[in-house]
Amino acid sequence: MKIVIVGGVAGGASAAARARRLSEDAEIVILERGDYVSFANCGMPYHIGGEIKKRSDLLMSTPEYFREQFLTDVRIGHEATAIDRSGKSVRVIERGTGREYDEPYDKLVLCQGAAPIRPDLPGIDHPRILYLRTIPDMDRIKELVDGGAKTAIVIGAGYIGLEMVEALVHRGLKVDLVELQEQVLPALDPEMTSDVQYHLEEKGVRVRLGTGARAFHDVSGRVEVELDNGGSVAADFVLMAIGVRPESQMAEAAGLELGVRGAVKVDAHMRTSDPDIYAAGDMVEVTDTVTGEPVNIPLAGPANRQGRIIADNILGRESTYTTSQGTAIVKAFDLTAAATGASEKTLRRVGREFTKIYLHPFGHAIYYPGTAHMHTKVIFDPEDGKILGAQIIGRDGVDKRIDIFAVAVRTGLTVYDLEQLELAYAPSYGSAKDPVNMAGFVGANVLDGIIRFWFPEDHPGKTSQGTVLDVRTPKEYGRGHLSGAVLIPLDELRSRLEEVRKLPEPIYIYCLTGIRSYLAYRILEMNGFKDLYNLAGGWKTFNCCHRTRMPDGSIGALHAEYE
Amino acid sequence: MKIVIVGGVAGGASAAARARRLSEDAEIVILERGDYVSFANCGMPYHIGGEIKKRSDLLMSTPEYFREQFLTDVRIGHEATAIDRSGKSVRVIERGTGREYDEPYDKLVLCQGAAPIRPDLPGIDHPRILYLRTIPDMDRIKELVDGGAKTAIVIGAGYIGLEMVEALVHRGLKVDLVELQEQVLPALDPEMTSDVQYHLEEKGVRVRLGTGARAFHDVSGRVEVELDNGGSVAADFVLMAIGVRPESQMAEAAGLELGVRGAVKVDAHMRTSDPDIYAAGDMVEVTDTVTGEPVNIPLAGPANRQGRIIADNILGRESTYTTSQGTAIVKAFDLTAAATGASEKTLRRVGREFTKIYLHPFGHAIYYPGTAHMHTKVIFDPEDGKILGAQIIGRDGVDKRIDIFAVAVRTGLTVYDLEQLELAYAPSYGSAKDPVNMAGFVGANVLDGIIRFWFPEDHPGKTSQGTVLDVRTPKEYGRGHLSGAVLIPLDELRSRLEEVRKLPEPIYIYCLTGIRSYLAYRILEMNGFKDLYNLAGGWKTFNCCHRTRMPDGSIGALHAEYE
Repeated sequence: MKIVIVGGVAGGASAAARARRLSEDAEIVILERGDYVSFANCGMPYHIGGEIKKRSDLLMSTPEYFREQFLTDVRIGHEATAIDRSGKSVRVIERGTGREYDEPYDKLVLCQGAAPIRPDLPGIDHPRILYLRTIPDMDRIKELVDGGAKTAIVIGAGYIGLEMVEALVHRGLKVDLVELQEQVLPALDPEMTSDVQYHLEEKGVRVRLGTGARAFHDVSGRVEVELDNGGSVAADFVLMAIGVRPESQMAEAAGLELGVRGAVKVDAHMRTSDPDIYAAGDMVEVTDTVTGEPVNIPLAGPANRQGRIIADNILGRESTYTTSQGTAIVKAFDLTAAATGASEKTLRRVGREFTKIYLHPFGHAIYYPGTAHMHTKVIFDPEDGKILGAQIIGRDGVDKRIDIFAVAVRTGLTVYDLEQLELAYAPSYGSAKDPVNMAGFVGANVLDGIIRFWFPEDHPGKTSQGTVLDVRTPKEYGRGHLSGAVLIPLDELRSRLEEVRKLPEPIYIYCLTGIRSYLAYRILEMNGFKDLYNLAGGWKTFNCCHRTRMPDGSIGALHAEYE
Repeated sequence: MKIVIVGGVAGGASAAARARRLSEDAEIVILERGDYVSFANCGMPYHIGGEIKKRSDLLMSTPEYFREQFLTDVRIGHEATAIDRSGKSVRVIERGTGREYDEPYDKLVLCQGAAPIRPDLPGIDHPRILYLRTIPDMDRIKELVDGGAKTAIVIGAGYIGLEMVEALVHRGLKVDLVELQEQVLPALDPEMTSDVQYHLEEKGVRVRLGTGARAFHDVSGRVEVELDNGGSVAADFVLMAIGVRPESQMAEAAGLELGVRGAVKVDAHMRTSDPDIYAAGDMVEVTDTVTGEPVNIPLAGPANRQGRIIADNILGRESTYTTSQGTAIVKAFDLTAAATGASEKTLRRVGREFTKIYLHPFGHAIYYPGTAHMHTKVIFDPEDGKILGAQIIGRDGVDKRIDIFAVAVRTGLTVYDLEQLELAYAPSYGSAKDPVNMAGFVGANVLDGIIRFWFPEDHPGKTSQGTVLDVRTPKEYGRGHLSGAVLIPLDELRSRLEEVRKLPEPIYIYCLTGIRSYLAYRILEMNGFKDLYNLAGGWKTFNCCHRTRMPDGSIGALHAEYE
């Protein structure tokens, strides 16, 4: 059995190591066009930013290690250029010498990843327009920063874009962030990203949303970016991070079936349309856990697991990959933003029914120092309560909660299941009613008819047909409130029911985070009111949705006072 | 409907709040014998220790708040002393006045908690022998510490004992910790607790295991503790934290059925043997998630959720409590120790078959600063791979992983499911193959016959019948190795197979953490060796089990170098 693996980073390295652990006899060849195998590509922004001091720390493994430990013939600087499927061989060019040769295989494993998208725009060849994919890419950026670059433009506000913004700001650069969409982190729903945007701005980043580059000009060696919106911005260099595209050209040329976004189609065993060719990682099409749609999601975790699964299947152990759910997390200075499963915009696009709730629980017990609100959105099935997705922005404890939601999405847990989870509690780690339990309580209340929500997007349209009822304190109301809102503080509600009876229904109740308005809702409902709605996430979520300011001038859910 | 709740802290407060949210008409009375309702009892050690500066931060709610917000008749200083079940009333004594009265109920809710165990030993009445349950208890301890106490003896090394040890050391006291068992944290398996013990010792705590107090003597106002082992130790005060006992005397006197440890028996609706009396929290018997045994587990999370469930059931919404799994976490200075599900000792006691694995993964990507090994033990069913329990000791990321295992235990996930989990990865939060995925990989390898383990407790008994094979480097071997171990470094194994063939089988392989020995195992197996075992958790776990030192003099799994 001769296994030829094209690409030696995440999936390829995993496949090789697992294959050797399952077979001493297999001949294993890794063709890696770069100079490195199994390097920590996710760590590159942090080496540029200075958190990871030693470049060598990113080189998790070496060709020598693979040769010695896994008897793998690792050929760095060897690029596969074509597949001869009938002859079962790969055409290879050795970069250093230009020598070309054919490498025969019994099983071919494609782990070629995805390449940064390089838009076909005037001036795109400017040498100071950079990308971050490989170690040399990183070296080039770091060289510019070490060499005294003072300004940078990051185009694309996705995960890598944000990590690079942070890295460059850490290094003292003045950074412009340009994003075509009207939000940062386009994978998330827009209202959830407001706080990230505000936080970037707070750190001195100029965030330019809703505009893209249309041309690049050289200005004395620097780059000027001409923007769609008519403006322009110049800097010492530009980092393009507008996404990646599967490296499927060779697969396509060989006639392998491609799917969405040009990704290679594979079955559950990670086998392409050619039974002797497997593929893994950023270059393949997978099935979305929630929508069932074919998707291409470039993430390290699935890539590594898929490589391992391929080795199993080649060596006779049946092993299947199920689905991808896009679990992702990003550090943006002091904030953490994370998501798993389907977003609201995805569900709207595919026309799937859903219910959503917003919460603002704390990362751990409020009385123990060092915690903050987590702006939490949970999306679930309105019939059976199955968790479809979650998004969380906060400081402490975000990574933990998104992982629990990730397990919920994968294993089909419902809001009722979340109520019952018994999670670890001590004051510095959580709360006796964990935020995940709380999400379960709120979700179950929705399904059980104990609460009905209205949403920021209902204002001012729907809400103008009834009454907007503010149940906060007069002081809070005085500092700012929704236009036309009637103030009846929660404390006075029971004694002022007659006033409420005179207000036109529906009654759209709100408070700061949704807790007091929930109590008000319950009081009113039990007093005979029928047409009631509670503002999900309260004014905090409202502000994030409408990008309005809190009355004290602060912005977003995470900067505001708490109840 | 008149609901009388006895006890206004965790379960009682939750029951009252939920009941009011479900009914405006219910009459709700809380009888609380202390002066506080809904206080943060889990935060008390941290107020004594100084992390939580303001005492008032612990008072999460007030009788006034409950009165106003939840129209609840909160009577602090009123102690329920007897139940008249046929007359449906509770006998109450008002502490301040001594007045006694009968309070009628339609439904009675017992949330009386559990009292610290007070052993019947000579001298136990010494005024400097303290307990930590209530706010006045906390005030008394803090007063002594603020007043200049220099030394303390903490008896009992469970969760509260350890939290108090840390608090007192933070305040500059010299602390002796006395524990009857031969380990700290008796809820965990002993080998997992070694690192916690070493860490306490590193922080200056004198840890005295395997001994208990047998008498207390007054020495000029200080306390001298006479120990079982013949020794004695004196200090300015003693904190007794040897566990708690359900406060079920009143329930018992009323003829309610009791179960294990004197806890009140309840059905899935949290109803006692009297259909008009419910009970929640530390005073009730629940079912163990894994063993199905009746247990009494005092934990805040279940207490709160049970209170809520009682309110649902009383007010006509069917709601059930399932089981308790003992998920718990404790901060011990810089370490975190956490557990969920069944321990090995519990499974041995009940005679349930299990398989166990040990791992030493990092809290997050090793190349990103600020991480450390997590000593991880996962216990699963040897047939279907269902996760039965997990224990983790480490620094960063312990709370997150124990919560995922907690979900796994609760929802019946198997090691195969853990392999497939798609968890959030970025370098500062995790690894592309998360520690939980890794546990899945290793567990699946066991079930699939790809690896077989031997365990520290097999040495020197079983292992003396075969060969102990050390596959580390000569340098590592030179600094210390298992007695009689044959050295063949992993790198040389393939070329020295003939030597291995001459060694008596079984071959018990080991390395530092179990990774290199796994590779060695695979090489040997695929070269025809049949009787092979890999040391689970490597020498790190071995050292924790046998309480031996690493060759560099360091102790435990978390202080040793990593591969």
